[in-house]
Amino acid sequence: MNKKSFASDNNAGVHPLILEAIANCNEGHVVGYGDDPYTRSAIKTIKEFTDDSADVFFVYGGTGANVLAIGSMCRPFESVICAATAHINVDECGAPERFSGAKLVDVPTTDGKLNPALIRPFLHGFDFEHHSQPKAISISQPTELGTVYSLSELEDLRKLADEFGLYLHMDGARIANAAVALDCSLRELTFEAGMDIVSFGGNKNGLMFGEALIFFNKKLSENFKYMRKQGMQLHSKMRFISVQFETYLKSGLWKENARHANKMALVLAEKLKELPSVKITQPVQTNAVFAIIPEQIKLQLIKDYFFYDWDIHKGEVRWMTAFDMDEVTITEFVNRIKLLS
Amino acid sequence: MNKKSFASDNNAGVHPLILEAIANCNEGHVVGYGDDPYTRSAIKTIKEFTDDSADVFFVYGGTGANVLAIGSMCRPFESVICAATAHINVDECGAPERFSGAKLVDVPTTDGKLNPALIRPFLHGFDFEHHSQPKAISISQPTELGTVYSLSELEDLRKLADEFGLYLHMDGARIANAAVALDCSLRELTFEAGMDIVSFGGNKNGLMFGEALIFFNKKLSENFKYMRKQGMQLHSKMRFISVQFETYLKSGLWKENARHANKMALVLAEKLKELPSVKITQPVQTNAVFAIIPEQIKLQLIKDYFFYDWDIHKGEVRWMTAFDMDEVTITEFVNRIKLLS
Amino acid sequence: MNKKSFASDNNAGVHPLILEAIANCNEGHVVGYGDDPYTRSAIKTIKEFTDDSADVFFVYGGTGANVLAIGSMCRPFESVICAATAHINVDECGAPERFSGAKLVDVPTTDGKLNPALIRPFLHGFDFEHHSQPKAISISQPTELGTVYSLSELEDLRKLADEFGLYLHMDGARIANAAVALDCSLRELTFEAGMDIVSFGGNKNGLMFGEALIFFNKKLSENFKYMRKQGMQLHSKMRFISVQFETYLKSGLWKENARHANKMALVLAEKLKELPSVKITQPVQTNAVFAIIPEQIKLQLIKDYFFYDWDIHKGEVRWMTAFDMDEVTITEFVNRIKLLS
Amino acid sequence: MNKKSFASDNNAGVHPLILEAIANCNEGHVVGYGDDPYTRSAIKTIKEFTDDSADVFFVYGGTGANVLAIGSMCRPFESVICAATAHINVDECGAPERFSGAKLVDVPTTDGKLNPALIRPFLHGFDFEHHSQPKAISISQPTELGTVYSLSELEDLRKLADEFGLYLHMDGARIANAAVALDCSLRELTFEAGMDIVSFGGNKNGLMFGEALIFFNKKLSENFKYMRKQGMQLHSKMRFISVQFETYLKSGLWKENARHANKMALVLAEKLKELPSVKITQPVQTNAVFAIIPEQIKLQLIKDYFFYDWDIHKGEVRWMTAFDMDEVTITEFVNRIKLLS
Repeated sequence: MNKKSFASDNNAGVHPLILEAIANCNEGHVVGYGDDPYTRSAIKTIKEFTDDSADVFFVYGGTGANVLAIGSMCRPFESVICAATAHINVDECGAPERFSGAKLVDVPTTDGKLNPALIRPFLHGFDFEHHSQPKAISISQPTELGTVYSLSELEDLRKLADEFGLYLHMDGARIANAAVALDCSLRELTFEAGMDIVSFGGNKNGLMFGEALIFFNKKLSENFKYMRKQGMQLHSKMRFISVQFETYLKSGLWKENARHANKMALVLAEKLKELPSVKITQPVQTNAVFAIIPEQIKLQLIKDYFFYDWDIHKGEVRWMTAFDMDEVTITEFVNRIKLLS
Repeated sequence: MNKKSFASDNNAGVHPLILEAIANCNEGHVVGYGDDPYTRSAIKTIKEFTDDSADVFFVYGGTGANVLAIGSMCRPFESVICAATAHINVDECGAPERFSGAKLVDVPTTDGKLNPALIRPFLHGFDFEHHSQPKAISISQPTELGTVYSLSELEDLRKLADEFGLYLHMDGARIANAAVALDCSLRELTFEAGMDIVSFGGNKNGLMFGEALIFFNKKLSENFKYMRKQGMQLHSKMRFISVQFETYLKSGLWKENARHANKMALVLAEKLKELPSVKITQPVQTNAVFAIIPEQIKLQLIKDYFFYDWDIHKGEVRWMTAFDMDEVTITEFVNRIKLLS
Repeated sequence: MNKKSFASDNNAGVHPLILEAIANCNEGHVVGYGDDPYTRSAIKTIKEFTDDSADVFFVYGGTGANVLAIGSMCRPFESVICAATAHINVDECGAPERFSGAKLVDVPTTDGKLNPALIRPFLHGFDFEHHSQPKAISISQPTELGTVYSLSELEDLRKLADEFGLYLHMDGARIANAAVALDCSLRELTFEAGMDIVSFGGNKNGLMFGEALIFFNKKLSENFKYMRKQGMQLHSKMRFISVQFETYLKSGLWKENARHANKMALVLAEKLKELPSVKITQPVQTNAVFAIIPEQIKLQLIKDYFFYDWDIHKGEVRWMTAFDMDEVTITEFVNRIKLLS
Repeated sequence: MNKKSFASDNNAGVHPLILEAIANCNEGHVVGYGDDPYTRSAIKTIKEFTDDSADVFFVYGGTGANVLAIGSMCRPFESVICAATAHINVDECGAPERFSGAKLVDVPTTDGKLNPALIRPFLHGFDFEHHSQPKAISISQPTELGTVYSLSELEDLRKLADEFGLYLHMDGARIANAAVALDCSLRELTFEAGMDIVSFGGNKNGLMFGEALIFFNKKLSENFKYMRKQGMQLHSKMRFISVQFETYLKSGLWKENARHANKMALVLAEKLKELPSVKITQPVQTNAVFAIIPEQIKLQLIKDYFFYDWDIHKGEVRWMTAFDMDEVTITEFVNRIKLLS
């Protein structure tokens, strides 16, 4: 496969600016495991983009970030409420449960988004020792369905969390795409939105490896350094993660890449609307298009353009547009569908 | 700190050949999570250097590799025998126990090396349900004390393992340094030495991130892909790990770097022998020098050259020589000690 | 509270025959941990009532039995499908996940009963490393809603399990009540119904403590003795559990008690039908009556007769009839409701 | 086997007073899971015998008590220091590690007793994220070798614990034997000795099942009710555990039984001293005698009197005297050895 893929934004490579930053820091010796000037600087930058009160830790990847976030919010006898479609629930092979011992309580949704009305029926059994104690809500922003929580929807969740003494975690594997979609700052989307912890990812938007875990609730980060090591997420040559995040934020790459990726999804959706054989199933708010297409078209199309089934029973597929997607590829792709229709 | 450090070989940067390989593979889209041509090729190469029967999986780092190796050898009611100084026992913050649920049985040694006589007293309680069942032996090659198991010592361990039905795991965080020290091939050191699993590392010898877990016992790798994902060790953009290992082996870098690092340790040891204030405590077989030095010298020296205490009670320190160490730095370092003596 | 309770069948005491058996075995010394003649005899008896191929282990209680059953069926990267109302899902404080590391996949039902059509949508993601691998189905017989799977419904589940290579576990905390309801033998309900493991409980039907885990699939019991010990479920003075089960089965007490308890529930339901203020919500097949009653009646009634809310949102309560319930108490209870209506 | 055994004090039966108490409480319905008057009374009694500040929870057995104590003291990245011979280290099949995720650090001793000098070398690596953080000391009183910590030795441990901010746990599986040996009250031995948690057992001294976990440090018991349930240690018909402890303490049985058992061990030791073929290896302070005897004698003796090897390499065996041991049996036993010598 060398054609650009609609499979996942992590099928793309690394942005040249990131490669350059990596090469540039490869000089001399620095202390390992994060006690180096590159890492200190990157942490400072993340705080500038979010809030000065933040505690920042780099880990290896998204699953590690989410799982350790859960581990820092919940004791094993507590539970996390999440959407049934959440990455932590369906795409991490049970890592949250195994590592934290806590229970996931998954809530069915239509668009991947939780809200107080959906959550409330699951908030019971407090103080009852037979029942896993609800302790946190985890949301994906954007969701695994490409949809986005508005700032006011986040506020509603924060209020609910406060009412029941719950922590709020944001899985921000594609957080830049959400910020661009909402036209808001990272600060508004995280600290001001009342998140306790944010998994801040960049691999789907041009980085090579690494993810940042940002704690706005210092109580939760108190012993996190041990949890990161025990969670097998402490990189020795940390500078090579840190400089990626530094460059990603400082250069504006985070926003530029996300804006482009989101735009490409809209272009794709726009063109697809002309095709009667394709039915788009979710609002296109970030860089994903979900659609139902006839089986025979799918089987042909997938030979040239790798992508994933989303719901086999419904014939629903997912098309992601990465930061390096271009209109020509989209046009060819849509033409291919047209031809197959 | 920009002076070259004697702290750890992971304080060094990445070898230019590795950076180049990373840049070269950054082209177009490939499927994520390892189903890509770069990864297939790297796995083929590792098999060529070890054995065609091997099953190879890339993970994020050394702790992840070791912990998942233990998890694949042991059920939670079983135990792993290791040296008391083993990385898994003292430097992984309890990750093996937490992830696998299994017990570590640590054996005191003088030089970091296990042998049948040391192990036998711990091999009891078989079939007794109150006792964690011994199931695996884990050795570090080279050890955390810089010493190396000879091929015949490995053979003795394999025989013992066979006698009691135990698996044999090698923590090869610095395996290249051992191979160079023994002047043997990786194949002789792993497959032919009867290892069931090897953690094959390179970060301490010029790589950026990633480690390979090599299974010569297919029974143990059967479900490993799930364990890797659940163990938070599955990288999405896998090609950036794979090409490092491909280049590392194919170019001979693994050997060249290790040979240099080992040689520098010998040079250092040789020069230190002239100093009556320094007492070398372990045979210098790879790229580490362990020594007892007077407290007042240490406190001055560490201001200019970062390194770690090994045993505070004995006044023992550890000096590592990385692949990029040079004789000038060593001479300066020894001169500094001379001056302080 | 000395009035008989409708709260739970475990609010009742121990049947005199059981106390007598316990006293009778209290003679002289026997080897601990189950290697004694009383335990051997009890195991033989359980095999006679189920199948000679069974492997039987006594544990402390129902949660221990269920959790260890899951631990013996699933590796941590696998999952168990259960009804959303299952005891393992809502009443064990997350013990299954914590101990086994495996994931629970909970399926909404109307009557607590799973069937192939409900389960099939959750049987996907096989061989996909991001997804917890479905490995077992766990059912409660009778269910937590007092309903019972017919033998033919069990057959359907066994077929489905075979189709997907899944294990089948029965939580038989009240298994005697189900057998009586179906008028079938324990053998028909367990071994012949194709169960791999059965949690065979008696505490809710007159025993004091202990539960039997019956394996009909020997592959699953291979290392179970270690799992029981590590799972903190191995009793030292085992004879005092064993003789309870021996007597329970040999004397026919299991059937007699269950028959009476079931009958009392029917009597209660019959009488309640005359009350327009009470709406029974589930078929009364064993010893539970679920009903919706007006809030103000409930608040008065509960002062005299302790019982549990089932669904606060719906105003649904649960009334259990234990083996020692009597018609007079039921009549008084219904009269009290009448008076309050 | 109907001869009285020297194997373990849990080979004995249940004291008649305990059986009587169980039978007496078997009346009417009481709320399950400990919210009953019998349990409230038993807790009150335990507080009277220790301290009014205590939080008391009943669990199923000794392993459960110890493991949950560790789980309540340590997060998974922390460690417990114990003697190498500790029950938690060698006789619980790895349950502490599996359930708590924490690491056990086992310290070699000659007599099963820890002291500050033995512990200090293991108290390092604080604040170093690669190292399991020492958080608790667990001692067995009496030890698994039958030896007893004096009150002043306990005081030394408390001081050390305070110096390093560690919790102190006592595995009191045979605590009554220690109290009798020291001629002190349970209060002096637990609360006044500065214990944070005590596993208070009675099964080896005449009880049937159950163990009490006594927290003198309220911070540790805060969420314990959930941990007990998730740890599969919450009994439904709790009264049948509670009344055992109530009677055990109130009647003086705990002291009477322990005194007798200890005395029998002394009698045995005294008689054995006359036999040149038997070498007693530990001070006889409670109800155990450790001795080295010739292999051929052991093999004959064990046919008539079941007992356990302690150290096969040394030819050391363990003889326990239970609360129901009598001098005639001891005389016969010693005569049998004499005859075999």
